[in-house]
Amino acid sequence: MSLLVVGSVAYDGIETPFGKVDKILGGSATYISLTSSYFTGNVNLVGVVGKDFAEDDISLLESKNVNLKGLQRDYSGNTFFWRGKYHYDLNNRDTLDTQLNVFEHFDPLIPEEYKNAKYVALGNIEPSLQNKVLDQIEDPDYVVMDTMNFWIDGTPDALKRTLKLVDLLVINDSEARELADEPNLFRAAEKVMKMGPETLIIKKGEHGALLFTRGEIFSAPAYPVIDIFDPTGAGDSFMGGMLGWIAYTNDRSSQNLRRAVIFGSVMASFCVEEFGPERLKNLTEKEIYDRYREFRELSQIPEIS
Amino acid sequence: MSLLVVGSVAYDGIETPFGKVDKILGGSATYISLTSSYFTGNVNLVGVVGKDFAEDDISLLESKNVNLKGLQRDYSGNTFFWRGKYHYDLNNRDTLDTQLNVFEHFDPLIPEEYKNAKYVALGNIEPSLQNKVLDQIEDPDYVVMDTMNFWIDGTPDALKRTLKLVDLLVINDSEARELADEPNLFRAAEKVMKMGPETLIIKKGEHGALLFTRGEIFSAPAYPVIDIFDPTGAGDSFMGGMLGWIAYTNDRSSQNLRRAVIFGSVMASFCVEEFGPERLKNLTEKEIYDRYREFRELSQIPEIS
Repeated sequence: MSLLVVGSVAYDGIETPFGKVDKILGGSATYISLTSSYFTGNVNLVGVVGKDFAEDDISLLESKNVNLKGLQRDYSGNTFFWRGKYHYDLNNRDTLDTQLNVFEHFDPLIPEEYKNAKYVALGNIEPSLQNKVLDQIEDPDYVVMDTMNFWIDGTPDALKRTLKLVDLLVINDSEARELADEPNLFRAAEKVMKMGPETLIIKKGEHGALLFTRGEIFSAPAYPVIDIFDPTGAGDSFMGGMLGWIAYTNDRSSQNLRRAVIFGSVMASFCVEEFGPERLKNLTEKEIYDRYREFRELSQIPEIS
Repeated sequence: MSLLVVGSVAYDGIETPFGKVDKILGGSATYISLTSSYFTGNVNLVGVVGKDFAEDDISLLESKNVNLKGLQRDYSGNTFFWRGKYHYDLNNRDTLDTQLNVFEHFDPLIPEEYKNAKYVALGNIEPSLQNKVLDQIEDPDYVVMDTMNFWIDGTPDALKRTLKLVDLLVINDSEARELADEPNLFRAAEKVMKMGPETLIIKKGEHGALLFTRGEIFSAPAYPVIDIFDPTGAGDSFMGGMLGWIAYTNDRSSQNLRRAVIFGSVMASFCVEEFGPERLKNLTEKEIYDRYREFRELSQIPEIS
């Protein structure tokens, strides 16, 4: 089924304890599109880039059959740029520079041919823009959304309006606690789901993820990546892998949502192995399915005879 | 198989956001004995109590068939007493009072009839005492040990000597990082296992536990206890459930160690439902096995057809 992806397309400058890169392709829509493209052939991107956006990066997305009709080109400035530095433990980072550039006036216009999209991925952008996207989609079957503390603090009302329209919300544990104003994660999940989404995924970084749906909980393990090289894009890769699988199978049963969470974890685990989206450029189907099976083995609880 | 349990027997004063109790049975050897007794009929305790130790508490342990021949009674003082207060999120606690009392001069003497013990549980006590216990055991098959930051900081050399004699070490994530002086948990695990234990369990509190054995990793989920009432004894109950299962089955295969980790998690999840060891007094076999199956369901990753 067709998948519409809306979010940022950016350049990132990244420093980790293992190296440094001055300018590399980034942005939530980029990671979601790249990762979901391994599952579904019908990925439609909406975003904006500036005059500095490289032909090579266009080619990369096109090589993955990502439809770029909705990628606006704004020649009045440069592409959104973020620069950050990760600490030794890789769980924390400092933002050193943020240049919104053409992203500051991003107006997500959905091309006619995208308007019948059944699956919609709202990357982490301003909730009022996420809302505006949904206004333009005729009859979406399944809306998945990411958000962050910045919007929970800054624009809580717009966020709550968007949440009412969302089927699946993907956030991390501290965001869930903050959004619900509740320290207990399981109680926080209950409160967040009352705000709209019937399904909730709480990402716990190195501790895996929790899926809450239809009164059921699924606890997904994290992949024991010994060498996390660069965490940039991991959350968006999770969302792309997950939604790519759901759109491909067009199956939102509890069992298949479990599979989707694992495919999300698989894509995130690949993402962090190299700088930026490097590792996501040339994955094979075998690598992806093998890692799914590794996840399965990792958390398999034997029966008691 | 026979299981020898060495550790503290204590009284605790506990305050949580949900209530307060002035004096309740506690201590690592108590929790390990109570929980393991549900699996194996041959639990032998070594510890010390003071003149204030109540007949009811003796009766409780005896009712679970815990052999108390190694429980010393020292009439020169009172039983080890600890008082603490948990914060709102239950992950942190303040120690308000510690009275070592008769535990200060605890000399773990192993009764003759315990000396051929095959399974040995060393609760979290001074490493030199743990060492002294092992010196007295003729030919233990499997030694399991708990420790804490206090000993990692305070008596690192004695701790490292004990570690060389240990088959399975159970610690939490921050302790593993500190012991290995390595922030990456998986790398820390590798370093800790080089210190002696061929099997390592890292407890991650609300995030479950990791089992490292024979080049294999198992990621166990946490039980989504909505209402943690009192976390006291959870870690020791984990150890008791785990080792009780191993001693009962006398099977240390990777697959059975996975089961043991889940039974440990099961007993910890019961423990936190009421104050102190209250919930551990009258569990049924059905409750324990049902919860094992719940854990299994919670983390079941479906196959891909």
